[in-house]
Amino acid sequence: MRFFSDNAAPAHPKVLEAIAAANRIDTAYDGDEWSQRLDGAFSDLFGTEVRAFWVTTGTAANCLALAALCPPYRAILCHKDSHIEVDEAGAPGFFTAGAKLILLDGEGAKITPKTVAQACDLIRNDVHQVQPAAISITNATEYGLIYRAAELAALGERAKQRGLAFHLDGARIANALAGSGENLGDLTWRAGVDAMSFGFVKNGGLNAECLVLFKTELADEIAVRRKRAGHLLSKGRYLAAQILAMLEDDLWLDNARAANAAAQKVASAAPNRLVYPVEANEIFLRVSNEEAERLRGQGLDFYEWGPGQIRFVTSWDAQSEALDRLASALAALE
Amino acid sequence: MRFFSDNAAPAHPKVLEAIAAANRIDTAYDGDEWSQRLDGAFSDLFGTEVRAFWVTTGTAANCLALAALCPPYRAILCHKDSHIEVDEAGAPGFFTAGAKLILLDGEGAKITPKTVAQACDLIRNDVHQVQPAAISITNATEYGLIYRAAELAALGERAKQRGLAFHLDGARIANALAGSGENLGDLTWRAGVDAMSFGFVKNGGLNAECLVLFKTELADEIAVRRKRAGHLLSKGRYLAAQILAMLEDDLWLDNARAANAAAQKVASAAPNRLVYPVEANEIFLRVSNEEAERLRGQGLDFYEWGPGQIRFVTSWDAQSEALDRLASALAALE
Amino acid sequence: MRFFSDNAAPAHPKVLEAIAAANRIDTAYDGDEWSQRLDGAFSDLFGTEVRAFWVTTGTAANCLALAALCPPYRAILCHKDSHIEVDEAGAPGFFTAGAKLILLDGEGAKITPKTVAQACDLIRNDVHQVQPAAISITNATEYGLIYRAAELAALGERAKQRGLAFHLDGARIANALAGSGENLGDLTWRAGVDAMSFGFVKNGGLNAECLVLFKTELADEIAVRRKRAGHLLSKGRYLAAQILAMLEDDLWLDNARAANAAAQKVASAAPNRLVYPVEANEIFLRVSNEEAERLRGQGLDFYEWGPGQIRFVTSWDAQSEALDRLASALAALE
Amino acid sequence: MRFFSDNAAPAHPKVLEAIAAANRIDTAYDGDEWSQRLDGAFSDLFGTEVRAFWVTTGTAANCLALAALCPPYRAILCHKDSHIEVDEAGAPGFFTAGAKLILLDGEGAKITPKTVAQACDLIRNDVHQVQPAAISITNATEYGLIYRAAELAALGERAKQRGLAFHLDGARIANALAGSGENLGDLTWRAGVDAMSFGFVKNGGLNAECLVLFKTELADEIAVRRKRAGHLLSKGRYLAAQILAMLEDDLWLDNARAANAAAQKVASAAPNRLVYPVEANEIFLRVSNEEAERLRGQGLDFYEWGPGQIRFVTSWDAQSEALDRLASALAALE
Repeated sequence: MRFFSDNAAPAHPKVLEAIAAANRIDTAYDGDEWSQRLDGAFSDLFGTEVRAFWVTTGTAANCLALAALCPPYRAILCHKDSHIEVDEAGAPGFFTAGAKLILLDGEGAKITPKTVAQACDLIRNDVHQVQPAAISITNATEYGLIYRAAELAALGERAKQRGLAFHLDGARIANALAGSGENLGDLTWRAGVDAMSFGFVKNGGLNAECLVLFKTELADEIAVRRKRAGHLLSKGRYLAAQILAMLEDDLWLDNARAANAAAQKVASAAPNRLVYPVEANEIFLRVSNEEAERLRGQGLDFYEWGPGQIRFVTSWDAQSEALDRLASALAALE
Repeated sequence: MRFFSDNAAPAHPKVLEAIAAANRIDTAYDGDEWSQRLDGAFSDLFGTEVRAFWVTTGTAANCLALAALCPPYRAILCHKDSHIEVDEAGAPGFFTAGAKLILLDGEGAKITPKTVAQACDLIRNDVHQVQPAAISITNATEYGLIYRAAELAALGERAKQRGLAFHLDGARIANALAGSGENLGDLTWRAGVDAMSFGFVKNGGLNAECLVLFKTELADEIAVRRKRAGHLLSKGRYLAAQILAMLEDDLWLDNARAANAAAQKVASAAPNRLVYPVEANEIFLRVSNEEAERLRGQGLDFYEWGPGQIRFVTSWDAQSEALDRLASALAALE
Repeated sequence: MRFFSDNAAPAHPKVLEAIAAANRIDTAYDGDEWSQRLDGAFSDLFGTEVRAFWVTTGTAANCLALAALCPPYRAILCHKDSHIEVDEAGAPGFFTAGAKLILLDGEGAKITPKTVAQACDLIRNDVHQVQPAAISITNATEYGLIYRAAELAALGERAKQRGLAFHLDGARIANALAGSGENLGDLTWRAGVDAMSFGFVKNGGLNAECLVLFKTELADEIAVRRKRAGHLLSKGRYLAAQILAMLEDDLWLDNARAANAAAQKVASAAPNRLVYPVEANEIFLRVSNEEAERLRGQGLDFYEWGPGQIRFVTSWDAQSEALDRLASALAALE
Repeated sequence: MRFFSDNAAPAHPKVLEAIAAANRIDTAYDGDEWSQRLDGAFSDLFGTEVRAFWVTTGTAANCLALAALCPPYRAILCHKDSHIEVDEAGAPGFFTAGAKLILLDGEGAKITPKTVAQACDLIRNDVHQVQPAAISITNATEYGLIYRAAELAALGERAKQRGLAFHLDGARIANALAGSGENLGDLTWRAGVDAMSFGFVKNGGLNAECLVLFKTELADEIAVRRKRAGHLLSKGRYLAAQILAMLEDDLWLDNARAANAAAQKVASAAPNRLVYPVEANEIFLRVSNEEAERLRGQGLDFYEWGPGQIRFVTSWDAQSEALDRLASALAALE
């Protein structure tokens, strides 16, 4: 039973159906009818005018946005454990042509107005030091925590005060929304977010992610950068159709709720071992090496996450039986 | 009836079936069983050991390869009408971090040992001028012509003599193979090709292309560059499965043969108007503006290609009826 | 006797004196008193407010400016024989992070409103083709011709009409001004030039060039880019002092006049062999191989410039005797 | 009295003399006789074959070297307070096209075999994380400490073991050599250093620094990269002549000894306030804000270096009188 990551789960059947339904000739690139509906669909979803671009990876969505928000000679403030720093092979440096990531500490991979201010205050305002241009956060975070609306509003305020753009890695924005009960606008544009990656692949998609611009005047530049990075697929309709299927009848939210509920089930089996409160669909547990081996011996797969910690990720298709076995195995460790 | 491009055609049903069949949990990225079979499948196909990487666009396949073959401070020799120059939004400059394209003339978008030598001879061997590092060709060319094995061998020889790497844009390699009756090895590695994009999307694929390395020692670098460019999809199995389905029972060749045959049918309806001999699946015709309008008035869609010329591209799913109508319309122009 | 290039000539004695006079402790980088006077000195010279940055090469001055005028994903229109294309080792690609040079034809290395328009009109306005962002010219040109005020005004008008920034490579702006009798403002900002390199090294300087911004709002970005490219010297006063010495009492113009006069002397010795009219300080002559050898045999050094052509460049320190010998040798060829 | 930095000091008279002596026509760029002597002069100095390239800044020397030692998609391990991280405006990211700096802790800006190993061990060996390619150290360090031969040998050994190239920022290598009594070879190539910047400007030079390659096979690439970055001055002889003057009769070492001796004098005036032992020419002192103001009130200039610390830097031309006044002022604080 694999609990490595939600990015290994299968695609939801409705996503496959949507792909099949799009299997006819249409205009290439993003001129097809599905792609043309994206801006409207996301504008409706967010309750404000946005521009939406399909891409195939979160890395592309994040880094195209960062390249438009930060010139090559400036820096992006982010958490030291953020995905863009740790797991994207230096893609921000590639897409921005050399901009720097300035790494902030913070519990649970969260940054705060205070850590942002501290980092900025350490930078002399001269040409010798790289000046910050943007902040980037991940919600839900890399440790499964959720930034609440109030936290985001304060971060957005701080960014504005310091003249920084605001980027959101929303690989698990669905889990954050489902887990927090917040309003989607409050988690994004009302807090001042300029651009975000909107994750679908970890949430039942096949290979379509979305880059959403609240700062819509960046759209022309993003369109060119997407092409230039080899991310303008010629049959884009198969991506757009996936995304539209996910949005229809809130499938994306249902999937996230299922994943989150599965995580709660796992967490409740080992409440004393939790490294972080489980707010979305990731569970970090303290176990000994011997315990980790015992779990593996029962056919459970997961990542080690530093010494003495392991990570489970639940996904939209979590099977009751597998969850029961995992919960039993964890409970038996006590 | 759309004859804009083969990249607008639907995906072949077997490709969709393969995607559906891959719809279960597996290792993320390229650790899944389908992705793991690619190296072997392409090595068998080529009759030599290769390394194969799925990506989602020809631009990505081409430019990742070029970045590995040409350092930022050198140049790639290519035809002035090549796709990498004309239709990739400057992607070679992005992926290589600033390498230069040196543009060669040549009938039908072909370069020759002679034009390569002439271009090289114009470059002073000093630090002031950008020194060439590679040649890049497209087969079938942007005008639907096919480089034959002997031409390629001569080009490869010239590249070797001048110390240049050899890149092949194989967006329509299937049409070139089908249209020439050559041997696949002769069109590629036996001629000295180091790396190529192997096109599937224009040939019935959905969104999977392949980057094939004959210079296998570049594989580690390419793997990193692919990730860094946001082209390592987390559910790679849906790409690998498409490609394997295309290779199975030579579906890729059957599709190309169908597209080429359709092109012959169109060409034979207007033999006196052909700008180039029709060797693959593209037809360039001389028409007046008035004639072009007349064709459009009959519901035919195509691109203008410079003054007085129009381009039709046929695809694997060419419908007899549509072809008949197109042929009749062209014949009626005479 | 060396007539390879004006960039091999010695520095003017006043330049050395100025360096010696600046040899005391002062604020590092560009905080010293000499550097602080540059903006004012050039604003006075041009009769409009400018920002001036010392650098040590024309390549740096040109390419820092281009990087501020053209984003990585767009293009610069320039002549195919321009220095930035031919003699800067791909520096524009490096500084801009991959922007493209689009090469225009034109007699004597000049571009015109017409060739600019033609080049633009060939570019489809879509994301697949690289869109132009700027034009770049050299005055005096690489063939020693001078753009007149009226030509520049027309080019500036065309640039504006097409939404293009306007860059001037002024490696020999002094020779252009001296040779044309035009007004400096007419050759630059009144024609719409946004940024220029102002050459001193070819004109009697030691190792200081100047980047002049008429679009002063780019100053902060240029300051950072200069540092980031390793071009912010810690003892900048030795550069600023050179430049101020050149400006004092119009030394720069006197030097250029001397070089131009020397060129006229050479030209008048072989009027029937001139490839181009001699307007500044470069002379291109038609000679046979045998004649070229004969000249070399007399101890004259020069560059071959394509088949059957040779180039002489005169400089500020042209010695009467050397010029006489050159003139005699050329006259003797007739 | 300015003690901001040794990079603000005047140039040594012999350096000016050398510039004046080079003031005649010669081959442009680095074809002149002075430039041609550099390889030999540095090979003699180091007792091994090296290639030497003049440039005008330490940033250029460091970052050209780093670009040749680290591909765009890998990382350089360096101290978090290193000049390349803190004071070069992101130049490493620019020159390498996006490589990453991985920041190590360590007392006095030193890294050790242990911290290198720890950093490497935190990096998963996969395509998602940026793999290290090089280490970079500064000697003397940014806090005026000196890596001894044994420390360097151990670092070099560790680099080799981990497959990392070894870069040395030698902005104050002269002070390190003078202050340690070590052998120059032991501080550089015998320890495995591949490339270094050899500082002259902080040590009495005017505007010439040197990039020295022990890994001589990188020379061709460095030559091209230097040109491409706008760092190939056309009158290079004025740089080469400065460097040769500095090497003659060990002027560079005499200058460093004078600066170091001055630092000892300052240090001995406030032994209880030293943040670090004074080994080269930098003195870091603990002072209260009130004390700092008092010093400033006496006409002493220096940098604050974090809360409660100030930095003095002495230079080759330290005047006895100024030093006496500084020493007295410091002693009076006690």
